[in-house]
Amino acid sequence: MSKTPVSSLGEFGLIEQIKTWVPLQDSDVLKAIGDDAAVFHPAAGAEQLISTDCLVEGIHFDLTFQSMKHLGYKTVAVNVSDILAMNGTPQYLTLALALPQKISVELLQEFYEGVHLACREYHVVVIGGDLSASSANLFISVTVTGYAEKNDLVYRSGAKPGDLIVVTGNPGRSYAGLRVLLREKEFYLSDPDNFAPTLDRHSWCIERHIAPRLRTGVLTWLKQAGIRPTAMIDLSDGLAGDLFHICHQSGTGAVLEELSIPVTREIRELADQFDEEAVRWALFGGEDYELLMTVSPEHRTVIEEYEELSIIGAITSEPDSLLLEEAEGTRTEIEKQGWNHFT
Amino acid sequence: MSKTPVSSLGEFGLIEQIKTWVPLQDSDVLKAIGDDAAVFHPAAGAEQLISTDCLVEGIHFDLTFQSMKHLGYKTVAVNVSDILAMNGTPQYLTLALALPQKISVELLQEFYEGVHLACREYHVVVIGGDLSASSANLFISVTVTGYAEKNDLVYRSGAKPGDLIVVTGNPGRSYAGLRVLLREKEFYLSDPDNFAPTLDRHSWCIERHIAPRLRTGVLTWLKQAGIRPTAMIDLSDGLAGDLFHICHQSGTGAVLEELSIPVTREIRELADQFDEEAVRWALFGGEDYELLMTVSPEHRTVIEEYEELSIIGAITSEPDSLLLEEAEGTRTEIEKQGWNHFT
Repeated sequence: MSKTPVSSLGEFGLIEQIKTWVPLQDSDVLKAIGDDAAVFHPAAGAEQLISTDCLVEGIHFDLTFQSMKHLGYKTVAVNVSDILAMNGTPQYLTLALALPQKISVELLQEFYEGVHLACREYHVVVIGGDLSASSANLFISVTVTGYAEKNDLVYRSGAKPGDLIVVTGNPGRSYAGLRVLLREKEFYLSDPDNFAPTLDRHSWCIERHIAPRLRTGVLTWLKQAGIRPTAMIDLSDGLAGDLFHICHQSGTGAVLEELSIPVTREIRELADQFDEEAVRWALFGGEDYELLMTVSPEHRTVIEEYEELSIIGAITSEPDSLLLEEAEGTRTEIEKQGWNHFT
Repeated sequence: MSKTPVSSLGEFGLIEQIKTWVPLQDSDVLKAIGDDAAVFHPAAGAEQLISTDCLVEGIHFDLTFQSMKHLGYKTVAVNVSDILAMNGTPQYLTLALALPQKISVELLQEFYEGVHLACREYHVVVIGGDLSASSANLFISVTVTGYAEKNDLVYRSGAKPGDLIVVTGNPGRSYAGLRVLLREKEFYLSDPDNFAPTLDRHSWCIERHIAPRLRTGVLTWLKQAGIRPTAMIDLSDGLAGDLFHICHQSGTGAVLEELSIPVTREIRELADQFDEEAVRWALFGGEDYELLMTVSPEHRTVIEEYEELSIIGAITSEPDSLLLEEAEGTRTEIEKQGWNHFT
């Protein structure tokens, strides 16, 4: 691949390129990339949503095993995920990038290919951003806007004692992917000449880590079924940490049933290889970008019908108490540990 | 000053602190910091504006001479400036920070003091953000929203041949401040023991560089005078670069009158000390965060009344042609050079 330095285009030339990489098609946008600010006509009768995330090389991603295209996809997905977790409709994105010299125009184009892919999948549009150089790492900051009718909004704070705790997909899968990638990286570094990666058979978890697909279908289905979750959050800190956010803001506690947590056979086998407990990967793994919600118990039968949803416990009245109920009925307190980047 | 490591609070503890540092008072905000996304009720009958900037240590700022409080102020100001340049009303902010270990809780609090100061001055409110660690530099990304009625919006693209080119304040002043700061840093590094900084007598330019105050009054005055600029941009790349943006997007050219560019005596004297031309500082200096606008010539007399405004030239019909008319009447082409971080 050729490596055109970003400096050869300059900031203005680069912005012209980006406009072609993420073309705009949205009749509510009066002005997108290219002025002091973007301008859009807000959705009628709705509240506006806005969320910001940053992704930092060496903290959130490792360019030795994350392609720029996947990184672009994930950048969009993790932020759109925040709007979905409010039960909102994502709409517009701005992207700020600080680029170290190693990022060529070609790598940047790959990144925007991933961004564009996710934009099409989740029906969002890039309408602005900022570009800078960086003397060290690649920094990405993304802001997403969206909208929702006031009565559709779901906050973290609405869980009630007795509510079912419901999760999409398989928490721990992203962390499983990360562990495989880190293991392969170690193999590679210890013996680069004889490195034969065995990533293909782990694509079930690696894909979740490097390019998580969001559960937009579940939200549509819930709406059609007339079910509005009482509280919702997306899984970025791990099941335990994110459930704690819901409990803390709702003034409640929770009991998780260990056997109900949808840990797949693959996750169990992989955790066994590392001599670790699969349930801990689900509880503390993070970056799953699944949806964790609480739902009134009257909807149990309907929820059980939907394959992507698992009922994994219930909300209790004891503030900030997180318990894990094991197979034999014993209940142990779950440590309040989540991802802490600041260690 | 004590130096509490950010890791001792963790991300969640830190967020609780930040909520007290930038308290929220805004009845249109349904949910601010603390959920997956912030929620606000959009201004009735108006278009929404959004703009993102990033500020990177070592590229945009130098912590050896920029205090965290000033940095916080500037972070907000440079982004609010983008909304003003659309002739809009700034409203909400999100802030994403990637913090290296050297940034203690106390330094972060100073940063937010500056943020809060600017928020009060420009009537904007922090409603969300993200925090991460950073293995190397401090990285700041800020997104601002605002609103404007469709007919009040001013784009870069509306300049017409014959329009007056009008600028607020004194372009080049921020660059003068930067040069003084860099000179003092050099003195310090060459002889730390005998360093006696002479910054006070240069506060007129240093302040513009480290904490630029925005010209909100001018916009109110123009509105009251019934004058709507035909095009507008804020000065971040220097007079030449930003005027070129207006010309390029308007399909026009421009002639600047060298004698009309409001270069103060202080800027001239300082440029002399460096054996450089003051007018080049104004044209290529950057980071002034003044407003550059084009106005229909019928408003000349009214514009001349307002002290903070200077008429510095006129728009021409020749696309992308930027000329400087010197005292004796000769016209020379202005180089199309602006700030290029990617060199």
